[in-house]
Amino acid sequence: MVKSPDKLLKIVDLDFHNRALLVSALSHRSMGAGNNERLEFLGDSILGFVIAEQLYRQFPDADEGILSRLRASLVNQKSLADIARELTLGDFLILGPGELKSGGFRRDSILSDALEALMGALLKDQGFEASKAWILRLFASRLDGLNLVNGKKDPKTLLQELQQGSKKELPEYKLKSQSGLPHKKVFVVECHVSKQVVIGHGASRKKAEQEAALAMLDILKQV
Amino acid sequence: MVKSPDKLLKIVDLDFHNRALLVSALSHRSMGAGNNERLEFLGDSILGFVIAEQLYRQFPDADEGILSRLRASLVNQKSLADIARELTLGDFLILGPGELKSGGFRRDSILSDALEALMGALLKDQGFEASKAWILRLFASRLDGLNLVNGKKDPKTLLQELQQGSKKELPEYKLKSQSGLPHKKVFVVECHVSKQVVIGHGASRKKAEQEAALAMLDILKQV
Repeated sequence: MVKSPDKLLKIVDLDFHNRALLVSALSHRSMGAGNNERLEFLGDSILGFVIAEQLYRQFPDADEGILSRLRASLVNQKSLADIARELTLGDFLILGPGELKSGGFRRDSILSDALEALMGALLKDQGFEASKAWILRLFASRLDGLNLVNGKKDPKTLLQELQQGSKKELPEYKLKSQSGLPHKKVFVVECHVSKQVVIGHGASRKKAEQEAALAMLDILKQV
Repeated sequence: MVKSPDKLLKIVDLDFHNRALLVSALSHRSMGAGNNERLEFLGDSILGFVIAEQLYRQFPDADEGILSRLRASLVNQKSLADIARELTLGDFLILGPGELKSGGFRRDSILSDALEALMGALLKDQGFEASKAWILRLFASRLDGLNLVNGKKDPKTLLQELQQGSKKELPEYKLKSQSGLPHKKVFVVECHVSKQVVIGHGASRKKAEQEAALAMLDILKQV
């Protein structure tokens, strides 16, 4: 039994002037016309922008490679589906009979698409600032969780300190390759910690090392 | 000789409160610290969003596949570099000696990055609405040029009418493959016109055909 959209509005702490937009945002494409695919397109684009702007502000010393990686770590199907589950969004999805039977309301892709569609619907219903504020609210704890790489410290320094602090093996960086034209070089660096290895790319060796350190912090759950 | 940023402001019909942001937006990474890479990250994200929102509004009957394709046709390195050239942006770029020597001010990637960085700089300097307005101004003629697929007509109809109108060979569609799980099928269709062939993908045969028709209109310079 699909729950009423009104209950969802209480959970997400929102109101909609145009309820048809809300219903559309919850309607999977298996429902045919009036489904959420267009709103998802819109929501995906405002989400990408809002998070980019927030990261730009939050990490004044991070270069664009790190900003891109941070954004990718926040905005992906898995994390969106997680947020959708926190909101119990699956209980409100309007699915065709086939999807309903096969448990579509539990599927990451469907949950993530519907959450993006809700962002797009709110944009249409109440404008940019309202949608932006809601997105930042949804991502608040995840954005706060990025604090370790905030401020003046770069990922390499943080990784070094983290390992020193817990008296563990220090990270080791190995240049694996270097290619490309002089104005567009690509460096590939491995970062080793214990038995774990990650790879970083960058326009300089230093940038590649920072990328690799960030990926390692990610694995060690420190970002 | 690099021209003064003041002259650029006249050409782009903008003013900047914070001139340092403007200088930064014009500075290629070959200049080291304070270059435009972070601003480009920001500009790229607002550009994607602003164009997505505009297309959503402009094409109320287009599905998300068509909206994505239209956006990709507007927002890409080549079209951004073209706009940058219309603004003579290359004359204002601040490049390191190596890039200067090798003609970096003429390179698509450098021009396109700098234009995006300018969008990001305007966002930081004057906020969302100002940057959005400028972006829509820059893309106005290109957005108008999309009018053929506006209104109620879908790409297949348009392509058919276009060929009929000019008494040319009518388009032919061929289903090439169909794959994926029942809830996530992917159809691949070819569209043939004279000796030209393009491919469209979609969640249904009809959507794949519309995508292919749009790609063909693109090739025939009708989008």
